[in-house]
Amino acid sequence: MSEITGSDIERARAELPPYIRRTPLLRSEELSAALGHPIWLKCENLQITGSYKARAAFTLLHRLGEDARRHGVALTSSGNFATAFAYMGRRLGVPTVLVMMRKTSPFKAEQVARLGGEIVWCEDRFEARFETLRRLEAERGLIAINHLEDPTVVIGHGTIGLEILEQLPEVPTVLVPISTGGLIAGIALAVKERHPQASVIGVQPEGSKATYLSFKAGAIVSIPETRTICDALTATRPGTLMFSLIQRYVDDIVLVADEAVAEAVAWLAREEKLVVEPSGAVGIAALRSGQVTPHGPTVALLSGGNIAPAHLAEILTSKT
Amino acid sequence: MSEITGSDIERARAELPPYIRRTPLLRSEELSAALGHPIWLKCENLQITGSYKARAAFTLLHRLGEDARRHGVALTSSGNFATAFAYMGRRLGVPTVLVMMRKTSPFKAEQVARLGGEIVWCEDRFEARFETLRRLEAERGLIAINHLEDPTVVIGHGTIGLEILEQLPEVPTVLVPISTGGLIAGIALAVKERHPQASVIGVQPEGSKATYLSFKAGAIVSIPETRTICDALTATRPGTLMFSLIQRYVDDIVLVADEAVAEAVAWLAREEKLVVEPSGAVGIAALRSGQVTPHGPTVALLSGGNIAPAHLAEILTSKT
Repeated sequence: MSEITGSDIERARAELPPYIRRTPLLRSEELSAALGHPIWLKCENLQITGSYKARAAFTLLHRLGEDARRHGVALTSSGNFATAFAYMGRRLGVPTVLVMMRKTSPFKAEQVARLGGEIVWCEDRFEARFETLRRLEAERGLIAINHLEDPTVVIGHGTIGLEILEQLPEVPTVLVPISTGGLIAGIALAVKERHPQASVIGVQPEGSKATYLSFKAGAIVSIPETRTICDALTATRPGTLMFSLIQRYVDDIVLVADEAVAEAVAWLAREEKLVVEPSGAVGIAALRSGQVTPHGPTVALLSGGNIAPAHLAEILTSKT
Repeated sequence: MSEITGSDIERARAELPPYIRRTPLLRSEELSAALGHPIWLKCENLQITGSYKARAAFTLLHRLGEDARRHGVALTSSGNFATAFAYMGRRLGVPTVLVMMRKTSPFKAEQVARLGGEIVWCEDRFEARFETLRRLEAERGLIAINHLEDPTVVIGHGTIGLEILEQLPEVPTVLVPISTGGLIAGIALAVKERHPQASVIGVQPEGSKATYLSFKAGAIVSIPETRTICDALTATRPGTLMFSLIQRYVDDIVLVADEAVAEAVAWLAREEKLVVEPSGAVGIAALRSGQVTPHGPTVALLSGGNIAPAHLAEILTSKT
C-alpha cells in the first residue's frame, strides 16, 4: 500500500485548473443560531459536474501516461464519478468507459451519456462492477481504475480539505459523507496533518453502514446489500487503503435515517437556496437530527447536487 | 434629486460587514458552451436573507441617526426587502415595520414574521403601500423609507456592481431584473462609471413592464396592474430617481414571458444546483429564450432565492 502524505495533496491542489471551482464556504445563519456554534457549508454541490468528483477525475486523467490516454480508461461509479469522468475525459481528450449498475439513477446516467461517456451496464451487485471492469481491461485494453484502492483518488478528494482550511481560519470539525471511504480518507489526511486537533466525523445512512460497522469492529466488514435514498452512498464495504486511513485519522462515524436526510434536502433548498442530493445532505441531517452535537466551528461537506428534479419536487412537497 | 457617484457606492461597499456575503460568481458550463461566450451567474440568491436586499437594508439602517434608530423605520416591500429589513433591524437593534400587500407570497410574509419584523397589511394596490407608509409616519412617528426614491437604496444595491467588476476582470454585459429600477440604477452607475464600454441590460416580465415602457417612451409610464409569476417585480412605475439613472446608464431593456422564467428556474435547479425565485431568473430566461444574444462575457444577476418550496416543486414537475 502506498503511503500518502499531505504534500501529495498539496501538489494535486496546485495542479487543479481554474475551471475546477474553489467552491464557496457559506455560513448557515439559521443552523449557527440554532446550534450555538458557527456552522459552515462547503458547497461541492456547486462544483462543476455537480459533485466533488470533478477534482479526483482531473487528477487521475491529468496524470495518465500517453499510452493510457490513447487507450482510454474505465471506471465504475454510482453516477457522480462517472459524470465527472465523462466530463473530464472529453475536456482532456481521453476516452472514458463507465461501468454502472442497472439501478443507477436515470438522471445520473443521462448526464454521463450527454457528456459523451460510454456506459457499460452491469448487474445490480457491488462486486459485479469490479468484475465488469476487469473484463473490460482484459478484452479492450482499457486502463481500469479501481477507485476503491487508488491513492490518486484519495489525493484528489483531499484537495477539499486544504481548501476548507484556507477558507476557515479556525480549526474545524468537518462532517463528511461516507461510501467507499475515499472522500473522508483524503479530507481527514489533509486536515489532520495540518491540524491534529481538528475533528473529522463520517456520516453514513442507516441503510448503508459498511464503513460504520468496520470502524466499530476495527476490521473491514462487508454487508450484503444497501437500502437508502442516498444513491451515491451504496458501497457494501470500504476500500482497504481508505479504511486504513480512516482508522488512522477519523474521529467518529455516525448514522442518519433516510427521513432525516430528506428533511435536510428540503431544508437546504428552502433556507440555503442550494440543491443538494440526499447523499450530500447527510452531514446536515446529522446536525439537524442531533446525531452530531457541535462544540465549535463545524463544516458540513455538501458533496453533490445531482438529484433528479422529480425526486427533489417529491421531497419538497412531502417535507415542507 | 441628489447626485449619486461611484465613490458613494465605494464607500457603502467598504462599510458592509463580513456577514453580508461577497456572493459567488459562477461560470455556467452549459450556457457558455451553448451560447459561445462565457456566461456568469452572480449568486445573490445565496446572499443572507435570500436576496440582494440585505445590502441596502444594512446601508440604510447602519446610517440612521440615533433618533431614527429609537423610533424605528417603516418600509413597503413585496417581500424580499421586508425580509432583509426585519433581519437587519434585529441585528442592528432597530425596530422595523413592514407594509405589505395582502397578496404577498405567504412564504415571504412568514419569513418576515419569523425574523421579528412587524407586518402592517395594506390593500393590493401599488400606491396603497405608500399611502399606508405615510399614515404610519404621521401616526406612529416611524421613519418611513421611500425605497422608490431613496438614493441610499441605489447606493446599497450598487455594491453588487463593484463586486462583479472585482470578480470578473473582463468588461462584461450585465443582465439585471427590474421592478422599481433601483437595483439596475445602482449596478449600472457602479459599472458604467468605471467601464463606460460595459453594457447593462434590464429584464422585465411581459406582464409587468412599466420601466420597459417608460424607457421606450423616454418618460415615466404607469401601468394599472401587473400579472406575472415574478412576485418581486410588481412595481407599476419606476422611481423618478431610478428612472433618471436608467436613462443615463442602461443600454437596453428586454421582456421575458412567464413560461420562459419558469423554465429558467427549473434549469437553474437542475443544472446549476441553485434555488432561484422567478424574479431572480429573468436574466437566464432572457438568455435561454434568445431575448438577449451575448457578444462577450455576460453576467446574469440571480437576485433572490425566496421561492415557496411548493411553488418550486410545481415548476420542477412541470418544466423538466
